[in-house]
Amino acid sequence: FSFNLTADCNAILKALQPIFQEQGMTETVHNWEDHGYLATYVKKNGSFANLRIHPHGLVLVDLQSYNDHMKGREEVDQLLNKVEEKMKELFHGNIKRVKRLPAILRGGVIDRYWPTADGRLVEYDIDEVVYDEDSPFQNIKILHSKQFGNILILSGDVNLAESDLAYTQAIMGSGKEDYTGKEVLILGGGDGGILYEIVKLKPKMVTMVASNIDQMVIDGCKKYMRKTCGDVLDNLKGECYQVLIEDCIPVLKRYAKEGRMFDYVINDLTAVPISTSPEEDSTWEFLRLILDLSMKVLKQDGKYFTQ
Amino acid sequence: FSFNLTADCNAILKALQPIFQEQGMTETVHNWEDHGYLATYVKKNGSFANLRIHPHGLVLVDLQSYNDHMKGREEVDQLLNKVEEKMKELFHGNIKRVKRLPAILRGGVIDRYWPTADGRLVEYDIDEVVYDEDSPFQNIKILHSKQFGNILILSGDVNLAESDLAYTQAIMGSGKEDYTGKEVLILGGGDGGILYEIVKLKPKMVTMVASNIDQMVIDGCKKYMRKTCGDVLDNLKGECYQVLIEDCIPVLKRYAKEGRMFDYVINDLTAVPISTSPEEDSTWEFLRLILDLSMKVLKQDGKYFTQ
Repeated sequence: FSFNLTADCNAILKALQPIFQEQGMTETVHNWEDHGYLATYVKKNGSFANLRIHPHGLVLVDLQSYNDHMKGREEVDQLLNKVEEKMKELFHGNIKRVKRLPAILRGGVIDRYWPTADGRLVEYDIDEVVYDEDSPFQNIKILHSKQFGNILILSGDVNLAESDLAYTQAIMGSGKEDYTGKEVLILGGGDGGILYEIVKLKPKMVTMVASNIDQMVIDGCKKYMRKTCGDVLDNLKGECYQVLIEDCIPVLKRYAKEGRMFDYVINDLTAVPISTSPEEDSTWEFLRLILDLSMKVLKQDGKYFTQ
Repeated sequence: FSFNLTADCNAILKALQPIFQEQGMTETVHNWEDHGYLATYVKKNGSFANLRIHPHGLVLVDLQSYNDHMKGREEVDQLLNKVEEKMKELFHGNIKRVKRLPAILRGGVIDRYWPTADGRLVEYDIDEVVYDEDSPFQNIKILHSKQFGNILILSGDVNLAESDLAYTQAIMGSGKEDYTGKEVLILGGGDGGILYEIVKLKPKMVTMVASNIDQMVIDGCKKYMRKTCGDVLDNLKGECYQVLIEDCIPVLKRYAKEGRMFDYVINDLTAVPISTSPEEDSTWEFLRLILDLSMKVLKQDGKYFTQ
């Protein structure tokens, strides 16, 4: 609850404490004088509530329980309804915001919380852990979501879901490119999505260079991300493609030296490389090196796509 | 922290309490005997921590502070690093999962938490409240997200973002329909997205029926969702379209009686209607009525699209 008035913390505490005590909860109060109150209410079954009253107009209620100690949503909702009613009685029209957030579930078999790269909390509708393995380089998870299908998560970072065809299409040029008869080089792309989509378009030859860091990613994806990669990862060689399990930098250098040229280079390496070879001393150096080498293997009228 | 062993709650408490006490936090412990411990650590600046130790192998740490009472992330991270280190020392290889979740921000000017219709917690990268008005029917918010552009939120329910062209394209038949010279009826669609996209395709006539419930939605969208609706809501009439601000049921009945027929009916009414007219006693009745009436105004080879 946030409100416009400076709060009489004591009045709020006195008004709300009967609601918790009616539940048979035992109260402990800490009074900061200048920072308001923290009241903790403990129930016999192991659940508890925190009531934090800030003097500048913010009241926070947190409920924590194990399994159905709170007998589920209904009991929680009833308690919160009473608190809300009482607060509205106390503050009349001066409450700026009342907000209830869904419960956060911790300690379960399935972890539904996968924060974004920019640190936002996102809960997915995960209902199954499909694959969960540690490679020497990273943790590789494939989790099933009702909404997105199987989702590839590398060391906690959501990478790609089976529903993310739009990502693959975008990095291929959003349907505006003609790959027929073309020479294509894919850097990274261990989930097989780009390879699978390009092979459908009758290219001359697609070479995908995935480092050995990606070997277990490939293993997981070829089994459990088949909406993304189809059967293209079942073999490392097909009629018009090959997959090299090698670090891409020596491969690019070799191709540059040999004068091997491509119509398209698609850089699908993870945005921040997991490890860089000794000659690069920073991420930016690594990215610049990849870009420089890619330009050397690109035909005059070739195209380079990346994230 | 979850782990495989049954926990010696007292040993965990004894191991972790110095970490909190070092921070100048005052401890209060509740011992349930059969349900483990709750230790509350209170700091002079108004921040506090809850340490909940469950005997079956789950330890939960919650930190709560106001603004920079915890001097930001770094201090929090240091504290949590110490807790994690100590837990790993205690349990060696037996910790199943260690997970830190991003801080939840409450009481700020901008509310970043908009749970999904299926009750999942999702934090958006909202950086501006663009529009926030109460109509007699609902609260209408338009919030700006760096990732999605402006987002329309109706009574807490995320409706459509400027980035959601894919939604509009899907409900129009995913680019497989030819709207040239066609008669189209849109039910709902107050954000103007469908109308804007169809008008581009040179239809004979598009009629959009948005109830007066949507008037303020239209007002907000025509100002702040222009990537979605362009200029199509600036006037209620154009060369090949009209917008009727009326309840769609009487309009459908009138058209049915008059024998007015359409090539396409696109039902973009909110999935759960805000209010139903007196003759419907349930959501399903309402949905069935809309569908029945739509069929009556649809040409023999006409098409009906909905969510």
